[in-house]
Amino acid sequence: MIIDCHGHYTTAPAALQEYRDAQLARLADPTLPVPAAPEISDDEIRLTIEGNQLRITRERGTDLTIFSPRASHMGHHIADPATAVAWARVCNDLIYRVTTLFPDNFAGVCQLPQVANEPLNACVDELDRCVTELGFVGCNLNPDPSGAWWTSPPLTDEYWFPLYEKMVELDVPAMIHVSTSCNPAVHTLGAHYLNADTTAFMQLLMGDLFGRFPTLRFVIPHGGGAVPYHWGRFLGIATREQRPPAETLLMNNVFFDTCVYHQPGIDLLTTVIRPGNILFASEMLGAVRGNNPAGDFPWDDTKRYVDQAPLAAEDRERVFELNARRVYPRLDAALTARGA
Amino acid sequence: MIIDCHGHYTTAPAALQEYRDAQLARLADPTLPVPAAPEISDDEIRLTIEGNQLRITRERGTDLTIFSPRASHMGHHIADPATAVAWARVCNDLIYRVTTLFPDNFAGVCQLPQVANEPLNACVDELDRCVTELGFVGCNLNPDPSGAWWTSPPLTDEYWFPLYEKMVELDVPAMIHVSTSCNPAVHTLGAHYLNADTTAFMQLLMGDLFGRFPTLRFVIPHGGGAVPYHWGRFLGIATREQRPPAETLLMNNVFFDTCVYHQPGIDLLTTVIRPGNILFASEMLGAVRGNNPAGDFPWDDTKRYVDQAPLAAEDRERVFELNARRVYPRLDAALTARGA
Repeated sequence: MIIDCHGHYTTAPAALQEYRDAQLARLADPTLPVPAAPEISDDEIRLTIEGNQLRITRERGTDLTIFSPRASHMGHHIADPATAVAWARVCNDLIYRVTTLFPDNFAGVCQLPQVANEPLNACVDELDRCVTELGFVGCNLNPDPSGAWWTSPPLTDEYWFPLYEKMVELDVPAMIHVSTSCNPAVHTLGAHYLNADTTAFMQLLMGDLFGRFPTLRFVIPHGGGAVPYHWGRFLGIATREQRPPAETLLMNNVFFDTCVYHQPGIDLLTTVIRPGNILFASEMLGAVRGNNPAGDFPWDDTKRYVDQAPLAAEDRERVFELNARRVYPRLDAALTARGA
Repeated sequence: MIIDCHGHYTTAPAALQEYRDAQLARLADPTLPVPAAPEISDDEIRLTIEGNQLRITRERGTDLTIFSPRASHMGHHIADPATAVAWARVCNDLIYRVTTLFPDNFAGVCQLPQVANEPLNACVDELDRCVTELGFVGCNLNPDPSGAWWTSPPLTDEYWFPLYEKMVELDVPAMIHVSTSCNPAVHTLGAHYLNADTTAFMQLLMGDLFGRFPTLRFVIPHGGGAVPYHWGRFLGIATREQRPPAETLLMNNVFFDTCVYHQPGIDLLTTVIRPGNILFASEMLGAVRGNNPAGDFPWDDTKRYVDQAPLAAEDRERVFELNARRVYPRLDAALTARGA
């Protein structure tokens, strides 16, 4: 089977955004009522999924998507903890409904109610709820909830440890994924997302987080940002700064997805990074939609590139399926339980 | 001949840093005297150059380095314009002496006295001085003088136009190069440098700067940050955001250097980016020093990678020499004048 480890519900029914708008309006005018959870029917969910993500996965021949709320709308820069908790809960409950309507096609990953420099208690609680009550298999962790101002400590700082302890306890990984950029100098999709991937990897390289949490696992999306392209630079800096080599320090715990939207990029990724550290993903429908006019196929049809990448058959199977089942053991258990 | 477009005087005599320390001490205690320019003999300069950069270029078989002050020490985050002016002047005067002591081996590029959100008049004046009086062939432009807080407007904003007007008048390019990161979340060499390259490219992609300044030229170092690895992503985002294609919008004016420290990275760069947009560079001695233990050769010996990259002979000549002479016409004129 083929597991896509990186999809967001970017096509959610309009009522979700209306709820968010009402939340934000109330922050501007506290006399407004607390908005009720959005009313969305099963048919509306079916329509938005069947006509989009599910149609496309069937066309491309992939089987299951690890699915989370829309990343750019997580909005962790909104500095009100109660708003963040309610918003994460509504978004995650909607993902849960997708996973119950299409249990063979989607596994849930939750948004956390992060607020920059606030304690992570609410995130721990929401992760616990989503995993133990809703059957989710992981979470998205924003290393920069300020929205491209980078006001939080590095991921190796003990600020983050309460969340890591819960992740370890539940045996679920996090995808490192920022939300929208509030910084006019930094484009969300073309700069902030990639910069965050690179920054997070470098934070991990400069610390010893996995000495303390040996089973903690992170997926760095978008092909690892700039990291594989500059793999020699990172290995060289690690040597110069007297760090252990990245391969031994990080690569039992850090994985890159395949959201790189052209063949040469995927060829580099699969040449430089060991196949055991690469998870298939497309982020469809995400940052890059539409067809590459040069080839008349979608930019984000990453299966096409991975099919053609210089991988042995058994390594391709690891990238497409086995690594995801290893990194997301709760997904593996669910698949095994139903004979997949 | 082989021109390395990206070298910094990272081995400058200790008196330079002592001068800087005295500058910074005076900012903390204004009763201290304004420090005098550092006293450095020609022999000291010869020693630091002949034993380092010049020795290595001879070993590797490159001929001329486009040379500028140490990037991580530009320190544009120090919010005192007079200090920035004096520091840039001292650093640039030292580069000038290198170019006069070794005229066949070094061409000067200047540091600008940038201070975040201050007017660029002093930068315009220093660029003019360095080009017209010292024979420099370009400048380094910091898109984030705050030091990884990204408080300046994008490079497409009219804030930067006075500098661009002077660059166009003098017909000199800028290398887009940040200085040290003051942000504990963002490592200088492993994150900030690469992120800045990516961010700057995306700023340019979202604007129409070269419609207004058709002869303005930028070199984006470190192989263009994450850009070539994610070339499909950038082309796809440009299409989705209804921008003209990057190839036509930017690629007459934007160039990438070859500071990518492993063979697969250089292979990707030379596969994805047209040979006319790639300038040979090593940033030796820079972020990554020492030998790759896997191959027992220096990480930053990029000539080795470019020699082996999938380039036709005439394209390799463009990367090694001709593109640099086109992008830096004052260098070309100087070389032509002495028959090189």
